[in-house]
Amino acid sequence: MWRYLKRLLIGKPLKTLDEGSQHLSRGKALALLSSDALSSVAYGTEQITTALIAVGSVALWLQIPIALLVLVLLGAITLSYRQIIHAYPSGGGAYLVTSKNWGQTPGLVAGGSLLVDYMLTVAVSVTSGTAAITSAIPGVHKYSVPIAVLLVLLLTGINLRGVRESASFLTIPVYAFILMMMGMIAYGLYNIATGNVDFQAPSAVGTSFSGLSLVLVMRAFSSGSSSLTGVEAISNAVPNFKEPKANNAAKTLVMMAVILAVFFGGVTFLSYWLGIRPSNEETVLAQIAEGVFGHGTLYYIFQISTAAILAVAANTGFSAFPQLAFNLAKDKFMPHIYLDKGDRLGYSNGIISLALGSIVLIMIFKGSTEALIPLYAVGVFVPFTLSQSGMIIHWWREREGHWIAKAVINFIGAAISAILVLTLFALRFTNVWPYLVIMPVLLYIFFTIRGHYRKIGKQLRVLSKEPIKRHHYDGADVLILVSNLTKVTAEAVDYAKSIGDNVMALHVSFDSNPEREQRLSNEFKREFPDVRYVDVHTSYRSITVPALRFVDELSRGSKERNRSLTVLIPQFIPHASWQNALHNQNSLRLKAALATRDVTVATYYFHLAE
Amino acid sequence: MWRYLKRLLIGKPLKTLDEGSQHLSRGKALALLSSDALSSVAYGTEQITTALIAVGSVALWLQIPIALLVLVLLGAITLSYRQIIHAYPSGGGAYLVTSKNWGQTPGLVAGGSLLVDYMLTVAVSVTSGTAAITSAIPGVHKYSVPIAVLLVLLLTGINLRGVRESASFLTIPVYAFILMMMGMIAYGLYNIATGNVDFQAPSAVGTSFSGLSLVLVMRAFSSGSSSLTGVEAISNAVPNFKEPKANNAAKTLVMMAVILAVFFGGVTFLSYWLGIRPSNEETVLAQIAEGVFGHGTLYYIFQISTAAILAVAANTGFSAFPQLAFNLAKDKFMPHIYLDKGDRLGYSNGIISLALGSIVLIMIFKGSTEALIPLYAVGVFVPFTLSQSGMIIHWWREREGHWIAKAVINFIGAAISAILVLTLFALRFTNVWPYLVIMPVLLYIFFTIRGHYRKIGKQLRVLSKEPIKRHHYDGADVLILVSNLTKVTAEAVDYAKSIGDNVMALHVSFDSNPEREQRLSNEFKREFPDVRYVDVHTSYRSITVPALRFVDELSRGSKERNRSLTVLIPQFIPHASWQNALHNQNSLRLKAALATRDVTVATYYFHLAE
Repeated sequence: MWRYLKRLLIGKPLKTLDEGSQHLSRGKALALLSSDALSSVAYGTEQITTALIAVGSVALWLQIPIALLVLVLLGAITLSYRQIIHAYPSGGGAYLVTSKNWGQTPGLVAGGSLLVDYMLTVAVSVTSGTAAITSAIPGVHKYSVPIAVLLVLLLTGINLRGVRESASFLTIPVYAFILMMMGMIAYGLYNIATGNVDFQAPSAVGTSFSGLSLVLVMRAFSSGSSSLTGVEAISNAVPNFKEPKANNAAKTLVMMAVILAVFFGGVTFLSYWLGIRPSNEETVLAQIAEGVFGHGTLYYIFQISTAAILAVAANTGFSAFPQLAFNLAKDKFMPHIYLDKGDRLGYSNGIISLALGSIVLIMIFKGSTEALIPLYAVGVFVPFTLSQSGMIIHWWREREGHWIAKAVINFIGAAISAILVLTLFALRFTNVWPYLVIMPVLLYIFFTIRGHYRKIGKQLRVLSKEPIKRHHYDGADVLILVSNLTKVTAEAVDYAKSIGDNVMALHVSFDSNPEREQRLSNEFKREFPDVRYVDVHTSYRSITVPALRFVDELSRGSKERNRSLTVLIPQFIPHASWQNALHNQNSLRLKAALATRDVTVATYYFHLAE
Repeated sequence: MWRYLKRLLIGKPLKTLDEGSQHLSRGKALALLSSDALSSVAYGTEQITTALIAVGSVALWLQIPIALLVLVLLGAITLSYRQIIHAYPSGGGAYLVTSKNWGQTPGLVAGGSLLVDYMLTVAVSVTSGTAAITSAIPGVHKYSVPIAVLLVLLLTGINLRGVRESASFLTIPVYAFILMMMGMIAYGLYNIATGNVDFQAPSAVGTSFSGLSLVLVMRAFSSGSSSLTGVEAISNAVPNFKEPKANNAAKTLVMMAVILAVFFGGVTFLSYWLGIRPSNEETVLAQIAEGVFGHGTLYYIFQISTAAILAVAANTGFSAFPQLAFNLAKDKFMPHIYLDKGDRLGYSNGIISLALGSIVLIMIFKGSTEALIPLYAVGVFVPFTLSQSGMIIHWWREREGHWIAKAVINFIGAAISAILVLTLFALRFTNVWPYLVIMPVLLYIFFTIRGHYRKIGKQLRVLSKEPIKRHHYDGADVLILVSNLTKVTAEAVDYAKSIGDNVMALHVSFDSNPEREQRLSNEFKREFPDVRYVDVHTSYRSITVPALRFVDELSRGSKERNRSLTVLIPQFIPHASWQNALHNQNSLRLKAALATRDVTVATYYFHLAE
């Protein structure tokens, strides 16, 4: 039943060799990996104006120079990540680059930040997208959280079906958004050029006002930097690209950065020109669209496409998180299960973990995204800082070609990112303090897991230099656990005789029915005279404790006489699997208990025909 | 961890022989088993007056003759159950009696009715108790459902600790209620006798009025019969009593019936005398208490003790349900797990099933008890009818002593019960129709389970007349599943050599790393030249499918050559059990898949020291 359902929802298993054809073309990769970055436009400019309006609308002209600063940062980050893609084509992004250059612990800080950040990406994008939906249809506003959770589940399903198929499906909303934004910016600028739209800014660029301070600028800048979240996604996903992977990834990155720059620049300019003031009722982007298109059909289409790309933006996390978890698991900092690919060649466990994490975030924060954005920004810019400063070390080590120019590019990116992080901690501490809790906990988990895998490896390793020391047993003891005398018991005894030269049977008896116990004992001894029958009596209700005690004693004896010991449990398997609920409870409990002992536990299966 | 928690909450395991001391004295049994019946007073009279007031307050005098009818029924049922206790001292009540005399299917109808009824007992009592609490503290009214669920969980915990301890704990509220009721009735009658309380009835007994009809009388009588729910509890729990069990149980039953008669008679008389009219704001019982005590401290104590006994009444279900489930499971109509006693000698699975069932009922009906009471009554009076009419058959078969007198007693009880059931179906069909759905479903489940156990038994049984046919294998094949070459693998090979004369190793390889696979193959062959190494290559990600295919082929070969086949899975067990989450996923999946095949599956355990 479960198998059919899985087949229906996830699709039929793919062969590993199908993987090649699962790789992404540039056009599809752009849709799949850029939605996070591009959709940031929906809140980036708004964050800047919200910070500025606190001083007064006279301060709004500052959004122009601040936007230029953000664009400089975008340029630096893009160039920097372009260099990273070529230097580290196997993917892994900030985690890999930081580990290679700064060392393990900083690398893990970067990796841990991004892991949490991808969950935030999903949570923030999905809830923002939901907010856009519920703004359009106010009646469903009270179902925000269920809608958001449903969206996450939908994305989870799509991603469990495999990478390429998601891309085909998700291309539409991304390109629709690109089209609508392009159209809006072009039409807006055309109207301004032709004088159809008046200059409505409350103050011209450069107007001086009281309250103009570095703190204000930094606060607005750090808020606006949330427009750049998601830029790193492409460098993490290089292995998903078609060959030549690095080249295609780099080109996609530049394409995305140019589009983002145009969008962010255009939106901020229009916001300034139209004198938009942030409000609780309507987002800045929606106000701009209304200013340009009027309150008509185009406005609604624009709103829908914004909502759609925000929902799709969450998908970035679904591409990036499993890949990062895979890299961390490969380095033994996360459980091995993140290495397993699913039937459809996606890292199912990573996808499911991400979905659970983001659903929990959505539920905890009940769909409120605003308080989360500063934390989200810290989570992004810490790895930015680490990876870009790491690249300086990289170039220093290589010292080839134009290495100084490259190092300068990375230095600019690193410096601005670092300043941003410091600013966020200084000016937004009430929002970002959880980072200081989460990070040590994550590092502790990473190191504990690695420590564990290492310890295990040391204990299991055979030294390949010298031949393995073989052990020869002098015989094999077999102990059959017997609860009654049935065909299963009889067949199990025959089997036991085939693998052992000394077969015993253990029965645990209770007080309740002494005659039955005696009868069983007599019958067993009569039918199997070649098997020693031991009846252990217990005053407790559990058969586990006395069985374990007996096995321990026997195990000691077998070891002394250099014999192997097998504990054999006869078990029948009902015809239909639901019938298991009516049986086998004791078997399961016994097996779990015996796993703690130094014996081999075997199950003799007897399959019932009906 | 779980074990410590369990020890803390449930207490340490008891030996089976401790069971004797777990048996109930009469005083404690009264508290433990009568709360359901006695607490029915809290709503019994109210049900009668509610039915009568529909015609007008002039009809209220009818409660006196109807109460007398209920008392006759109580007398008949009590005498009847007293006879049942002596005739069937091993407990089981209506289920056992009906099965023995009417046959299996009627017996199961009785048993199934009671199973559902105990869940209703818990649900109805707990929600009524909660209503009493929330009436006293109106502020917590909105938390009714969580409070009710919490009460169920509390009772579950108490019952998992064992029978006797619950009794000690629950004695207090029952005796407190008995004391308060006695006091109220005595003080009320004293006041009436001394003329301190006026005769306030709207009409004297015998006043004729239009609307007086048999339907009215039957409707009121069938409603009032809900006062008798819970009377059967003692006859189901005879084995829980101290020796002499039957005698003690019978005496407890009579004691309970007398108390119930006094309470019900007294309350109804006071209700009549004081002219109480049912209202939504205050229960009839509360109005009587107010009329007798005034609105002072005694009134509040009385209310609290009512709430307390209602909460405790739910406990009846916790004694009776697991015992009945045990009896049904012994007859193979319910899963075997209901036969297992827990560490504290209670039937834990029955207790937990009951708790879950009643929590579901509470949640579905959101704490509203009124609509449930007719269904509850049907569930009680169907088994009453069946068991009492069954007793007539019993006496007829024996025909000893005063058998005719005894049969007459049972006949009266059976007849009144049958009339009640018919009345409920005729006059309250909208409330009791679910019974006609639940019962066939339950019967279907019972017979399916029994059919399954029988089929299994037939397939497993060895005929004790002729000796079991033994089978001698010509040798033992062992297949080790190998994922890598570690100490675990090496030790498993040594073990395999001790149990088999032909050892093979199977490795499933993927495309991802061909050199690694080649290296493993070479190393293995060099270290274990005496083991045939097979590398099966798969294009899918799953190792289960190719492993199963190989095992199937091998299994066919072994069978042809009359050899046993063991599939051996080497597995290491980490030092701490949480670490299992980091490992063994593949092992578990493989073992589950292999259980569907005709092979013996053995696990070689390697315990890591750290």
